[in-house]
Amino acid sequence: MTDQPLAPFVPEHSHWRPIGIDGAAIRDGFWADMQSLNETMIEHCDYWIEKTGWLANFDAAVEGRLPADRTGREFSDSEIFKMLEAMSWQVARTHDDALEQRLEAITARVGAAQSPDGYISTMFGRPGQRPRYSDLAWGHEIYCMGHLIQAGVARGRTAGVGSPLAQIAIRAADHICAEFGEGGNPGYCGHPVVEMALAELSRLTGDTKYLAQAKRFIDRRGHGLLGADDVDPSYYQDAVPVRDMTVLGGHAVRALYLESGVVDVALETGDDDLLACAVTQMNTTLARRTYLTGGMGSRHTGEAIGADWELSPDRAYCETCAGIASIMANQRLLLATGDARYADAVERTLYNVLATSPSTDGHGFFYANPLQVREAGMEMPTDEVCHRSDSSLRAPWFDVSCCPTNVTRTLASLGAYLASQTGDAIQLHQWAPSTVAADLNAGRVRLSITTTYPLDGHITVRIDEAPSEPWTLGLRVPAWASDATLSYRDTTSEVSAGYATLTESFTPGDTVQLDFTVAPRWTYPDPRVDAVRGQVAVECGPVVQALESVDAKVDLAGVAVDVATPPVARDGRIWVNLAQVDDATNAPWRSDAAVGYGPAHQVPLVPYHNWGNRGPSTMRIWLPRLP
Amino acid sequence: MTDQPLAPFVPEHSHWRPIGIDGAAIRDGFWADMQSLNETMIEHCDYWIEKTGWLANFDAAVEGRLPADRTGREFSDSEIFKMLEAMSWQVARTHDDALEQRLEAITARVGAAQSPDGYISTMFGRPGQRPRYSDLAWGHEIYCMGHLIQAGVARGRTAGVGSPLAQIAIRAADHICAEFGEGGNPGYCGHPVVEMALAELSRLTGDTKYLAQAKRFIDRRGHGLLGADDVDPSYYQDAVPVRDMTVLGGHAVRALYLESGVVDVALETGDDDLLACAVTQMNTTLARRTYLTGGMGSRHTGEAIGADWELSPDRAYCETCAGIASIMANQRLLLATGDARYADAVERTLYNVLATSPSTDGHGFFYANPLQVREAGMEMPTDEVCHRSDSSLRAPWFDVSCCPTNVTRTLASLGAYLASQTGDAIQLHQWAPSTVAADLNAGRVRLSITTTYPLDGHITVRIDEAPSEPWTLGLRVPAWASDATLSYRDTTSEVSAGYATLTESFTPGDTVQLDFTVAPRWTYPDPRVDAVRGQVAVECGPVVQALESVDAKVDLAGVAVDVATPPVARDGRIWVNLAQVDDATNAPWRSDAAVGYGPAHQVPLVPYHNWGNRGPSTMRIWLPRLP
Repeated sequence: MTDQPLAPFVPEHSHWRPIGIDGAAIRDGFWADMQSLNETMIEHCDYWIEKTGWLANFDAAVEGRLPADRTGREFSDSEIFKMLEAMSWQVARTHDDALEQRLEAITARVGAAQSPDGYISTMFGRPGQRPRYSDLAWGHEIYCMGHLIQAGVARGRTAGVGSPLAQIAIRAADHICAEFGEGGNPGYCGHPVVEMALAELSRLTGDTKYLAQAKRFIDRRGHGLLGADDVDPSYYQDAVPVRDMTVLGGHAVRALYLESGVVDVALETGDDDLLACAVTQMNTTLARRTYLTGGMGSRHTGEAIGADWELSPDRAYCETCAGIASIMANQRLLLATGDARYADAVERTLYNVLATSPSTDGHGFFYANPLQVREAGMEMPTDEVCHRSDSSLRAPWFDVSCCPTNVTRTLASLGAYLASQTGDAIQLHQWAPSTVAADLNAGRVRLSITTTYPLDGHITVRIDEAPSEPWTLGLRVPAWASDATLSYRDTTSEVSAGYATLTESFTPGDTVQLDFTVAPRWTYPDPRVDAVRGQVAVECGPVVQALESVDAKVDLAGVAVDVATPPVARDGRIWVNLAQVDDATNAPWRSDAAVGYGPAHQVPLVPYHNWGNRGPSTMRIWLPRLP
Repeated sequence: MTDQPLAPFVPEHSHWRPIGIDGAAIRDGFWADMQSLNETMIEHCDYWIEKTGWLANFDAAVEGRLPADRTGREFSDSEIFKMLEAMSWQVARTHDDALEQRLEAITARVGAAQSPDGYISTMFGRPGQRPRYSDLAWGHEIYCMGHLIQAGVARGRTAGVGSPLAQIAIRAADHICAEFGEGGNPGYCGHPVVEMALAELSRLTGDTKYLAQAKRFIDRRGHGLLGADDVDPSYYQDAVPVRDMTVLGGHAVRALYLESGVVDVALETGDDDLLACAVTQMNTTLARRTYLTGGMGSRHTGEAIGADWELSPDRAYCETCAGIASIMANQRLLLATGDARYADAVERTLYNVLATSPSTDGHGFFYANPLQVREAGMEMPTDEVCHRSDSSLRAPWFDVSCCPTNVTRTLASLGAYLASQTGDAIQLHQWAPSTVAADLNAGRVRLSITTTYPLDGHITVRIDEAPSEPWTLGLRVPAWASDATLSYRDTTSEVSAGYATLTESFTPGDTVQLDFTVAPRWTYPDPRVDAVRGQVAVECGPVVQALESVDAKVDLAGVAVDVATPPVARDGRIWVNLAQVDDATNAPWRSDAAVGYGPAHQVPLVPYHNWGNRGPSTMRIWLPRLP
């Protein structure tokens, strides 16, 4: 064990410092249910890495049966590593002995395939395979080891740096530093992730050579060395040096993993200019290249973020992994800057991308998360590998199956996103029935948070333990909460979006009450978002709502709502007054704008994260407004 | 020479029969200028097939230097064949001896590489190459020979069936019939085109075995045999049998080439059910899956047509070849049915896709033709092969360079799209200063058409020669022309969209006058086209207009027009009153719909087919309406 918080990232030099899953625990409600479902999802992933043979690739390596017996794509090793990270957090959180034994067993099988110099890959380097690092653009070797290092950090924080998985990761990281260090191979990987992994390993071990290597990889990028044939260098985040980028673009997951590493390196090297670059990049991306769901990626081609205002709902890609990567990057920026916009972005993405991916039974996942689906598609198989873009319904596993394991590792470590601290303050970012504990300079603080959020906006923070000296409690007020009040003892004050703070000498048993309205509301787009002009969405608290054809029972292509009749909550659902176009013209382009609509009827919406759980259906978040 | 009209397709059993380029000639105006520019474009293509080595692949085949010396993709042979088709029509039209010598020289180099059994490909079948027909899904062997057969038909019609190119084509077709005929290889090609090529060769030679083979290929499709790995069978037009398809989908060029062959086979086999399928497929595609420009293909991924109403302007693919294929399919349906909607579709696509692709100097081409370009891109190289999707500006040649040669063959044979005939009638479809001659049952008719269309809508048809007996003249009135009148002798009648007809005993010197207004007009979208809701386009006659940033000098993301101020023509351009969003909010999603705009100013539009000729620029056809 180390004395670091049990969190995936623990910046040493940041505005705020995270409280790990040892200090912050979700006790009930929406996210507790998701964490409970995550037990099933981890078992599901474990089943699939065996079923596909991706884990057995390591056994085959040990037994000299590669490449003949290899299965899976270049990056299949990484799924085992992400699952090991998920298991590490899960074991720390639930103390599940059987799961820990499984974790150790998989770790042993992986470790047995590691070369004496620390290199590990089932895809490269053996007779009959391509040589090591012969395909940096597409080989994914460093990418896979980056995920291994993240898993090693998770296990190292929760079970000690001496634990086998942490040691395997350290050997891999040492190899990378030796191979790609000063005077060595001047290359870098086509898929970022190792940057944040190395920075984190530096934080875990205190060895700054890992941080230096992370910085080296970041500084090298951006000169078009990785582009080839049909693929633009922007796909590989190699078109422009990081410090010259003003907005995120290209492949969404690559961009956001890199952004996370950039923040890490900026913080730990004290590079304020680099941090300012990352802030500008993310702020512009949030303002112009992010969907209502928090999803990023408007192009199937190249799984790319797309241009400013290019936010087509039907061709939205919004890969689950890009959402997770955005959560990682935004949480880092939140801790780095204390700016509540990043906590808002994390919340939006948690509820509307992360929570959308898994099916209610934990055995299916969306890879892409479009905001409109025009064709209902077919029932997905429950026991077959599916293509990643055939995701009009959730699938059990994909040929490129990055999303399921990414969901599991994020949910297993979700407590680390709830709260942060400084020497004399605690900040509460995400609202859930939970407990939060931290050691401030003045002494230990323990809090119990009670709420049914996101169903309503009443949040009670009880101080269970506190020092007698004053300290500061910060409570995030979501950007959309316009009527928030903060009550403490006899005083109730209006508070605005951002962090409402109280600096007091709290007494155990004290309660602080945050209240704001959670009710269905219309949301309108920026006029520059052409693709949803004249349309309106319904949000309720942080939860984006969707209209599904299984509820509407009409062709969703022709619907419209009257915004003068507000959406209402009734019988546990949200209802809108929906009309259907009455138009027999079979000409897409006309000489006048007149459109007739039939009478409106009340139809219920469904939280977007629950859509697609009732068989093939069409769906849309954005609803045309009646003229 | 045969006695068939000199046209790319000459149905034997259709509603109308085409008048070839021997009977219909464009004399002046927009399309004469394009045909003149086509001389440069043919030279340009000739330069590039040598520069890339794609033509030299045939020499290398003869000299035993394949596969070592081969360059280009699987389908590069087809570019030589399409250029040979262009040259064949061009020679027939212009009687250019030097060009004919070049045509014969290339033909000789191609023919030298033909196997004794008629098979021809520089990509397959030699030691070190994959075996013949070992990759029907992606090998493009039959596709390439299909284009060779089309070239052979062009040369056969214009120079005689005994001409070397026609004979090479016949040998290739004989080989295909032997290989894939009854009891032979049961496969078919991943890229349709051979179907219409074989049907046409059957028409040229009178040998129905080619027609039977075309029918066989069509009947075999649709059982998912060609799908593999990441590629859905719909890409290969193999997901559903042709007779079960209700709308075109999947890869746009494949869909539209196949549709053309389906119409050909339906006509010549008298299969009215099959023709009815094609009609339904095209009518639904025109109503729900076709852009304002006539372009088809809303997805970059799979170069696919997309779903109903999925017509995003910024991600429109609208490949030039898909536009050309749509022209081919719609012209066939026009001749098959006599329904003017197909002539309207041909005209829309000619002016706004075919004419858009080439640059004003004939040395650059758009591969994709989006209706909105959000990022100006960079100047394109003038002497480098470019990637086909990097087409924010026109490029000289592409790695997949199907479009330039396709443009040249279409322009060289464009006269064949002007007019058709029956035994006692002539139909005029496309308006240009031109002459049209045909032998009707009653005798020879010669017409001179005078107009400055599409600049205005005044068309004078002078009868230069006519039999004394009555015959019928049909004149197409475009669908958007709402005030058309037809004048003959002392009578002027209102006529509606479609074909205005006069059955008279015309006297040489008679004139028939068709008049309608060509003025800038607003065009509104169907309410189901979400992507351009609340927007308006400007058309003037058949020409779609665009707003280009080099004219507007503002960020096109924030513009809007007041539809109460109509677009006006002034100084040779069309002007709209354009406002700019006045909005400092940096939040894409808001709680109210209010949007402020600054004052409006007059800015000029540019015909869409002329956009991108003044350096890097952003562009949009659809203009948001002021609230």
